[in-house]
Formats: sequence, structure tokens, C-alpha cells
Amino acid sequence: MAGNSFGKVFKITTFGESHGDGVGVVIDGCPPRISLSLEDFVRDMSRRRPGGRSFDTPRREEDGVQILSGVFEGLTTGTPITLFIQNRDADSRPYEILRRLFRPGHADYSYYKRYGHFDFRGGGRASARETAARVAAGVVAGKILEPLEAKVVAYTLELGGIKAASINLDLIDNSPVYCPDAIASEQMEEAILKAVKENDSLGGIVELRVTGCPAGLGEPVFDKLEADLAKAVMSVGAVKGVEIGAGFEAARLRGSQNNDPITPDGFASNRAGGILGGISNGDEIVMRAAVKPIPSIGIEQDTVDREGRPARLKLTGRHDVVAVPRIVPVLEAMIRIVLADHYLRLKAMG
Amino acid sequence: MAGNSFGKVFKITTFGESHGDGVGVVIDGCPPRISLSLEDFVRDMSRRRPGGRSFDTPRREEDGVQILSGVFEGLTTGTPITLFIQNRDADSRPYEILRRLFRPGHADYSYYKRYGHFDFRGGGRASARETAARVAAGVVAGKILEPLEAKVVAYTLELGGIKAASINLDLIDNSPVYCPDAIASEQMEEAILKAVKENDSLGGIVELRVTGCPAGLGEPVFDKLEADLAKAVMSVGAVKGVEIGAGFEAARLRGSQNNDPITPDGFASNRAGGILGGISNGDEIVMRAAVKPIPSIGIEQDTVDREGRPARLKLTGRHDVVAVPRIVPVLEAMIRIVLADHYLRLKAMG
Amino acid sequence: MAGNSFGKVFKITTFGESHGDGVGVVIDGCPPRISLSLEDFVRDMSRRRPGGRSFDTPRREEDGVQILSGVFEGLTTGTPITLFIQNRDADSRPYEILRRLFRPGHADYSYYKRYGHFDFRGGGRASARETAARVAAGVVAGKILEPLEAKVVAYTLELGGIKAASINLDLIDNSPVYCPDAIASEQMEEAILKAVKENDSLGGIVELRVTGCPAGLGEPVFDKLEADLAKAVMSVGAVKGVEIGAGFEAARLRGSQNNDPITPDGFASNRAGGILGGISNGDEIVMRAAVKPIPSIGIEQDTVDREGRPARLKLTGRHDVVAVPRIVPVLEAMIRIVLADHYLRLKAMG
Amino acid sequence: MAGNSFGKVFKITTFGESHGDGVGVVIDGCPPRISLSLEDFVRDMSRRRPGGRSFDTPRREEDGVQILSGVFEGLTTGTPITLFIQNRDADSRPYEILRRLFRPGHADYSYYKRYGHFDFRGGGRASARETAARVAAGVVAGKILEPLEAKVVAYTLELGGIKAASINLDLIDNSPVYCPDAIASEQMEEAILKAVKENDSLGGIVELRVTGCPAGLGEPVFDKLEADLAKAVMSVGAVKGVEIGAGFEAARLRGSQNNDPITPDGFASNRAGGILGGISNGDEIVMRAAVKPIPSIGIEQDTVDREGRPARLKLTGRHDVVAVPRIVPVLEAMIRIVLADHYLRLKAMG
Repeated sequence: MAGNSFGKVFKITTFGESHGDGVGVVIDGCPPRISLSLEDFVRDMSRRRPGGRSFDTPRREEDGVQILSGVFEGLTTGTPITLFIQNRDADSRPYEILRRLFRPGHADYSYYKRYGHFDFRGGGRASARETAARVAAGVVAGKILEPLEAKVVAYTLELGGIKAASINLDLIDNSPVYCPDAIASEQMEEAILKAVKENDSLGGIVELRVTGCPAGLGEPVFDKLEADLAKAVMSVGAVKGVEIGAGFEAARLRGSQNNDPITPDGFASNRAGGILGGISNGDEIVMRAAVKPIPSIGIEQDTVDREGRPARLKLTGRHDVVAVPRIVPVLEAMIRIVLADHYLRLKAMG
Repeated sequence: MAGNSFGKVFKITTFGESHGDGVGVVIDGCPPRISLSLEDFVRDMSRRRPGGRSFDTPRREEDGVQILSGVFEGLTTGTPITLFIQNRDADSRPYEILRRLFRPGHADYSYYKRYGHFDFRGGGRASARETAARVAAGVVAGKILEPLEAKVVAYTLELGGIKAASINLDLIDNSPVYCPDAIASEQMEEAILKAVKENDSLGGIVELRVTGCPAGLGEPVFDKLEADLAKAVMSVGAVKGVEIGAGFEAARLRGSQNNDPITPDGFASNRAGGILGGISNGDEIVMRAAVKPIPSIGIEQDTVDREGRPARLKLTGRHDVVAVPRIVPVLEAMIRIVLADHYLRLKAMG
Repeated sequence: MAGNSFGKVFKITTFGESHGDGVGVVIDGCPPRISLSLEDFVRDMSRRRPGGRSFDTPRREEDGVQILSGVFEGLTTGTPITLFIQNRDADSRPYEILRRLFRPGHADYSYYKRYGHFDFRGGGRASARETAARVAAGVVAGKILEPLEAKVVAYTLELGGIKAASINLDLIDNSPVYCPDAIASEQMEEAILKAVKENDSLGGIVELRVTGCPAGLGEPVFDKLEADLAKAVMSVGAVKGVEIGAGFEAARLRGSQNNDPITPDGFASNRAGGILGGISNGDEIVMRAAVKPIPSIGIEQDTVDREGRPARLKLTGRHDVVAVPRIVPVLEAMIRIVLADHYLRLKAMG
Repeated sequence: MAGNSFGKVFKITTFGESHGDGVGVVIDGCPPRISLSLEDFVRDMSRRRPGGRSFDTPRREEDGVQILSGVFEGLTTGTPITLFIQNRDADSRPYEILRRLFRPGHADYSYYKRYGHFDFRGGGRASARETAARVAAGVVAGKILEPLEAKVVAYTLELGGIKAASINLDLIDNSPVYCPDAIASEQMEEAILKAVKENDSLGGIVELRVTGCPAGLGEPVFDKLEADLAKAVMSVGAVKGVEIGAGFEAARLRGSQNNDPITPDGFASNRAGGILGGISNGDEIVMRAAVKPIPSIGIEQDTVDREGRPARLKLTGRHDVVAVPRIVPVLEAMIRIVLADHYLRLKAMG
């Protein structure tokens, strides 16, 4: 009820703050006898981790995952799996000013109004650091999905106004911004470096695709697959919009254009984005998420203090300029978590 | 778990099919001692009801709400409130062909894959008729919100490619398409009549606003207010996209443009759309939903039968050409339901 | 959260009051393609129904079940099943005095303290009439359990201090008090008739057995099978105690006496009552529930009015003298509901 | 859904195994601005901790609680509170035989049937060690209840057949078996030492009392206060029965004896045990729990191996002879957790 859990059968509860002991997740609802080892976490955790890219926040975190419970002799036991990621390189000193002032575009103001008392260091609970726990949970979700052979992939479709003109999934891993178009990727990098120089930040659009998802996942009427996916994606801090299939463009089409004809070989088009009436139809699931620019900027801004008095604030802490490349594995994780949940729900309901 | 409930404290469970006895909702989580009478339902139910507009489906439903439980001598008792809306003018004969064929763009195909057996008459459970129960529940949610003095209003921002150029909330009720721009409203009506003539259908965009919502609603990290709102909106059948505040446009802004400066008099702009870090910030909540064109069209389409054999289908049943005007009170109801839920959650958590 | 739902996968929500339109239940979580017809409800509803026994409340209810949703052409569809039982023979006049006075042993006092406003007619929401909805839901649960071939049977072990000396399950249906011992059954009947004459009421103990329940049902650590069964049984109005296997007697045994030895042919004894560590072990599940005497008696009692002033109250409405025979099918239903829920949960978690 | 969470608003999820890294709990639903420090945990954790009593298991655990999240500068923040208790003195060697053999009376057999693979060392997830996390959560629950001034106290009413003849709550803390009768306490100690000598074990009965609980807690019809309390108590490993107020004795009383008369000064008796119709009535809440003898005994027993072949098993690991004294703070914790949950639920529902 307090909002830190997600999923109904594959249920995760994240905990932890940016500058506390660490962040973690308890997974209650992972079936037994699934192999799980520390190795399984390396790829996704390292893709989300700060550091390594020219434009990354200088904060370095190993982000090694500890398995505190639920795995015995290399296999899950059906009991809660607790994953913990320690905070090591947290430097709280630059945040002392946040004891008084609210950062525009951040959660400080609303957390203060809501809770009266909050851990303001580096965003505390509202920090993107919490998403490390989501990525770790997404790894376990991926393990559950293995029998389905569904493949979840996300990439940067747009960044700082630059759009990928072509989509070659093989290029994603070579691009520091996870862009499937090599030329756009370079332009995006340049745009980022320019923004860094100007102490400003950028936003972008991430596209998500699930191939190989069988028909039948989703629980109408409220837990429609697209509704749960939308919530999952919108629950990631910087996301301001989400669309599926033709999305906002569908609003301008006619029924005769937007309906996907059905043929003996499947759907002749995919404006539905792989979901009909809240249930996957066997086609590729396609979604897009709008990611706002990082609110932490080195430009002085208007704000107020806790007593409502005007103030000027120029941030000096370590922070990213753009959420997009690092948010990609987070969104992939959330999609996997939703699919794993609905896959187990389908098993219950037959 | 089977997906027909929504909300955690103010919890609704809808039931019923388009051509069964009726549709209804059980509300478990309405506080006691709130006045509630049949009169309260009239306005919203009649705005959602088919009939009355030149372009409406010919199906006529009184949509009178029966209160089956939970209200005693005009006041809620804190026990489950059951609201039931009988189906009267359901004519199932035109749907007999759906025993064999799937309608493109509808839930028939995925329901068949998911359940093996489903009520195909008029869309059965997947019919927009289910939203009558949501509107009824939204009325009760509105009653709970009264102490907050928050005002929820939705309107047609775009329809069939025609966009409202100005927004005058006073015009909405005079417009048969709930459009806040009188000139655009007329053009939209014409577009609808043209689509009717061509046996085709249209989509549109609905904008939603909540004024007077206090700061402090929302439960991070997963039940962020925008995440629950996104799910609520995406759970309505025809919605294919949702955005909050600057939404997809935010992806193209810089941090210095997108951040809303904070002043002693409040936020100097509202690109956040009234929510920061998952919690309302006291500013106006602004969202948009993309609504796809009605998939039921009178133009012959390609499809398959239950055995996967190719077929041609031309629909003759009664149906709307555009979901937008009738979806407006439904989306308002969903917003109220989310707000009532988070308002009660806030009371628990203090 | 407001307490009217039970179960996690097989989830029921009951609604309705004793003297309102009726009582009902929405079942969200019944798998599709299960045959269900009105015939299925007849036996259990009629066993719970008032009337027919010499000592029954004079209130007569047909208790015919209406299926309002979720069943199409004789099969469940996986969508919410709504069952409704109309109130017909409700006579509210004798209850007018309860607008002022609280009945000792009833929920009136605490409902007034909790809600401030409540439907006091015949106990309103707190009436045993609500259990008609549970029995209806239990019929659906029984359908889900059919593949397991588990058999749930309950009977009166003790009534008004008279204890069954032998247990012959074949005798239960012939006994008006559902007692498996013919001699005790007659004595129990006499005790009831004597209590009627004395305007007093009686309690008893019901024993519950599940044979054929496979090993593996139950979700430690909180949703242990015995914990969910205990909650299910204690949630029935008149129950004041519950025990499993050796129960309270186990507290006086030594480990060497209480442990059930395991042999290649199964457990050599069953003091565990068929559950170990919260999970069924394949042995018979055995429980007992203590049922208090009906608080409605024709003897004048001390009470207070809503302002706390002393008063004397002598009840004249129609009521049973003993809950036990009619509670038997209710408890059976609750056991089936718990088992169906855990069976579906097991399917999800594999 | 997988059973490791309890509570709806004050929601706890425990994790961890007896011989893994440790046990812990995430509390999602603790209001903000409540003072919480490591000191708060000392008393209850030390009462539950093994060691210190003449008859305790030789396993020594400091059971120091670590606060991993949710507390900032000495106050809760409304975000998830994670409490972790490391395992230090775990010696897994004596348990190697459990890789093959099931211990009678333990969860080994049913866990194997349910999960196929489980951590058998010291009972793994089914170990009483998991209750250390419950006690830690109970401390936080107690903090939430402070405004209510409700006092929860439990004590040993019976142990090894010896019953407390008088109840003097002041004596509990001086008794190594938490018995409120000094003479019975000595006899119980003797009985324990005798059982130790005989390699056998004992059971007992714990009585629980809540004084100062206001009227109005509880959510009918399924989340009746007594139903949630019964589940809470039955979810503790060794408990085989639970009763409230007059309990099983009520089954033998007449309505005229069992009803508690209401007077201007409150209830004239308390056979209800402080709850009517699922809602606290302001009187003292009184419950009893039957605790079975510890199944680990040093006497050779019949069992089978994983392939079902007969075997003989004599346990040599470190274990208690009786659960009762150490279970007392665990049951107190569970009662506090239920009350905190219902207190917050009441705040939501008004």
C-alpha cells in the first residue's frame, strides 16, 4: 500500500536510499529450481552502472549484487530472494545545502510536503540509484521467462532532438548511448558533450520491443498488459509519457488504417503494438517512453527554501547529463518484470 | 490477481458483459457516512450513455444505476457498495458470426487465445460497456474527494486530426464532442458525419486536468501518482498512449527549459504536469490520452476464423464511429478513482 | 483493504446486508472453461438455508442463486463471476428498537463505534445472512478442486455439551444437526428444543476433514495453509476458536508422542492434522472450530442505548437457537475456498 | 502471493534462512517521523534470543539488528524500513544427514514435496530463526501503536502439562519461562530439565492480552480482527490452535451465559475477548495459543529418505526443548503487527 512493491505473483519490493547503506530488492514469487548465480547479474548491472562513458557521472559504483536469501546451492528455493547492492562511493557533502533548498525538477519539494522529513542526500529514496535494484530484479525475471524464449530489447530512438533514422539492433551494444543507428549515435554523443559544456542536460525517447512473446498474457480489465507495462515504465523516475504500437499517431488514423488485418500467417501490420484488449496477441510488443532531461543542472535556478523564501541554487554534485543510456537497461528490466508476473499469472489461471 | 480490481484502499471490482444481465461494480473501501443517492449518478452516466448525439450508436440504454448494497438511509456505511446497471437494449443477433470470425482491432482474437471460451456477443467482457461501471464508481470517488475541493475535467483536444485551438472549459458541456473550442467542435462533428458516411471511424486525444489537488498525493516508488494515473488511463480499452505535463515534448527540451522554477508563489511553469517524484506538488495535474479509432467499421476487412482459415468480415452491428466524446467521462472517472485511492492512502500513512 | 475480500488468486468479495436487496459475491480468479450451472448450487445452498428443521428460524428464504456475470453457455469464461441471492422474506419491523439499543453479544456496539452509521436491521452486514454468499462461492471453489479429488466434509462434533461418541460420515446427511453419531444427534435435537423452550441458545464444535488433499499446498511463512484455514474459519461470525490436528491437546504431549513417524506407506499417525511447516503433507487435514451460542435470546438482558444510558432488551425477532447445523456448509465452503486459492497459487509457482 | 508478506497497510515481508547470511524484514507502510534507533530493538530481541537460560539451545546469536534503509537522522521517512539480523554462530555440519532424511514433525517432508529443492540446513526457511525478523518488525509496530497506549503482553499459561494457577503480570519478567505464577514457573523449569535429560521435548499454552485497545479496530467481514489475529498466531511455526475470549469453552455455554451484558461502565464480563463482529469493542483482548512440543528430539525415530525408503533418525544438532518461552515475544510481536495494521487501516477509512 505504501507503494514500494510491484507485481502480483512475481512480486518485488525495493528498498534503500542513494546515500544510505545500499539499495536492494526482495522478490517474493520466484518459482523454485531456477539456476541463479552472481554471474547472471553482471551484464545488466554493468550496463546501468555509472562510469565508463565519457559523459557519465563521476560517481563510481561497483554495483556488485549480493544474494542474501532464497538461493541454495545455485538454485532458487521458492522462498524470498533478497538482492543487495551496497553504496560505496557516496559523497554526501555537496548535498548539505538540500537540507534547506528544493532542487527544481526534483522530488525534494513534494517529498517534503508528503513526508515532512526525508533523506535529501542525493535524492535519497527518489534517486535513480533505486533503479539498480530494479535491474537486479529484472535479471531474475529474465530467468523465469526463459521457457518463453521472449526477447526484450530497448534502445535510444531519440536523444537531445536527434532521431535514429534506421534501426539495426546489432549496433546497440556498440553505441555508448545504446542507439541502433551508428550515425545518429555519434551525433547524440556530440550533443551530450555540448550539453555538458553548457552545464545543461538532455532528454530522449527509448523504444522497447518484445519479440517471441506468446499470445495470451494479460489480465483484463484493469491489469491489461499495456496498462501494467505503462505503469511499469511510468514508475521510472524520468519518464513523462508512454505509448504502445501506433500510440499517439493512432489518434489521427482511421479505423480502416489502424486495424491490423488478420491473415493465416498472422497480423498483416502491427499498429496495435502486439496487444489487443489487454492481452498479448503473439505479435511483437512495441512501446516508446519519453524521458525528460536530467533536472540536475549546473545553471543557477530559482527556488525556495523550506520556509518558502526565495533562493537561487546552482548544483555542484556529481550527476549525469542525460538519463537515456543508463535508463535503457532499467526499462528492459521493468518490461521483463511485468512479463514474468503475467506469465506466472497465466499459469495460475490456465 | 485476475485483473478486475483497481485501487488499494478505494478498491473497485467491475463485473459483467455487454450482452449478459448487466455490468456492475463492487466498491470495497468507501468510508462511512458519505451521502449517496441515485441522483448523484445521473449527470456522469448520461454523459457516457449511448444515444442523444447525431452520430451515436443506435443502441439505447437507460443506464439507470441500482445500489444493491452499502448504503443505508442515504449514507454509506463503510461496507461494500455494489452498483448495478442492467442491460436492456442488447441485441445479440448480429454477433452470431463472431462465433467463428475474429474482428480486426478487437479483443476477439486474444481473448480466444487466452481463455479458449469467451462471450463474443458485442465484445462481451471487453466491450466498452464495462466502462459504465467505472463511471458509476467514479461518482462515488468524487464524493470522497469533496473535502479536497479538487476538480477533475477532461475534454477533447483533438479528433480526427482536428485540434482545439483554444481551451475554454465553459464550452465543453455545450459541445456534443466535449470540445473546449467552438469552431473546432463543429469541424469535429463534420468529420464524424463524414466518417459515418464512409463506414469508417476516427480517433482523438483527450486532455485531463485536475485543479485544486493538494501536494502530497502519491506513493513512490512504484505507485507514483503518474504511474497509477497512467495505468488507470491505459486500462481503458481504446487508449494507446498517455503523457503527463510536457510529456513526449519534454524529451526534446533541455533541463534548463524543462525544470519548473519554484517561487514563493508556487511553480513559475508547469512542465512537470503537477507531479514530482511520484507525488503531487500542488500545481494543476495535466495529462493527455491518445484514443485509437473505433475498430468496428462497415468496410470489409481481412481476418481468419477460429481454425485460422482466411475470411472477409464486414460488420453490421450497432457501434460508435469514435470513442472520444463518450470516453471523456470514463477517463474523468478513472482519474477520480486514482485520486480517491491515494487520498485515503495518504490518510493512513499521515 | 476494507476487509470484504478473501483469497489471492481465487479471490472473492462478498457484499450485501441482511435486510437490503440481497447478498452476493464477485469471484475474480476462476479459471475459464469450467462448467457451472444453477443446479450446482442447490445442495449447499439448501443445507445452509433457514427453514426445514424443527428448530429453525421462521424466516424462509428460497436462496436461489442468480449468476449475473462470468458464465457463458454453461462454462466459466475467466472473467468475474457474480452470484446474487435476493432477500425476500426480510421483515425489518422487529428491528426498529435497534436504532437505539445494542444487542449483547452482537456486532451492534462495535459497528456503531467503528462506523458511526450502520444498517442495524437484522444485523445488517454482520448478519449470518452474508454467509449465503460464501456458500455460493464455495460451490465454485469446489468445481476448481475437482481435478484434485479432495473431499471436504464437516460435521457437528459437539452441541450444547453433547459430544458425538463415534464418527460415521454416512450418517451426517440424515441428521438434522449434521452429527455423525445417531444417538448423539437425537440428544442434540432434544437439547435444542429445550433451549428453544427456555428462550436460550446453544453453541457447539464443528470438525472439518479434507481427504485426498495432495502434498504441496500452502505458502510459508505467513500464508501457511493452517494460517489461511484458521483465518477462513475465524472469519465466520460465531467462531471463537480453531485448532488443527492434535490442537490444544498437542500442548500437553511430548515431542516423542506428538511427532508423526514417517514410513514408506505414509505417516504412522496424524497429530499434525495433515500440514507440516505450513504445507499440506498428503495426509488428511483435520480441524475443529468452536462455535459460540447464538447471541439472540428471548431472555431480557442488560444493555445501553447509543447515548450510553442503561436499558433492558428482550429480543423478539426471528432467529436460530444454535448456529451449528447451518454453519457446517459455511465452514465447508470456506475450506474449499482456501484450498482452491492455494491450488491455483501452486500452479503459478510450480 | 508467495506468502512471505503480512499486513495490508503496515506490510512486512520477511526473508532469509537459518544457515544463510541472515534473516530480515522489509516494512513497507510505516508512517514518517517516528523515532527509531537500534536501542529500540534490544529488549524484544534479547527476550527471543537463544542463550542465557539453563535449558536453551547452545547456539549463541547476538541478534543485533541492522537498519539498512528507511530511517534518516533517527526518524522514519515513510520509505521501506529494512531490518537485517546476521547469522553468525550457524554450524551446518550436523545437518548434512538431512540432505537425505526427513525429520518427523518438521517441515522437511512437505518442503521437499512442494519445492523439490530446499535449504535443509537447520530448517532453512522453515526455521524458527525467521521469527527474529518478526520480532524486529514488531518493535516498529509497537512504535506506531504508541499514540493508542495499548499494551500487549503474553505469558506462559501452561507448559508440559503444568498450569499457572494465578496470573501476576509483574512476575513474568522474572520467570525464565515467562510464567506469571512463581510456583508454576519453578515446576515448569523442572519439567524442562527432566525433558532435556530424557532427550524429549515439551509444549505449552501462551495467553495474550491487549489492554487499552480502543473500540473500532477490525475490518469485517473477512479481515475481522479475530481472524487476522488468528492467522498471525497460526502463522508462527509451532502453533496448533488459537482461541479468543471464552474460546472452546464458549461452545459449551448458553447464550444467556456467554453474552457479555453492556452497562454504562462498559461490559460486565468479557467472554467475547474484546472483539464483537470482527471489531474491537474497547474491552481487553484475550487470546490463547497452543504450542506443540519441539519436534527435534534426541530419541531415535522412524522416517524415510527422499526415495521413500525406511530409515531411523536420531537428531544431534543444537535445539531447544520447548518453544514456549522464546515464542512469547514472537507472539507479542505478531499481535502488535496486526494492531498496527488495523490502526492504520482505520485511519484510512475514518
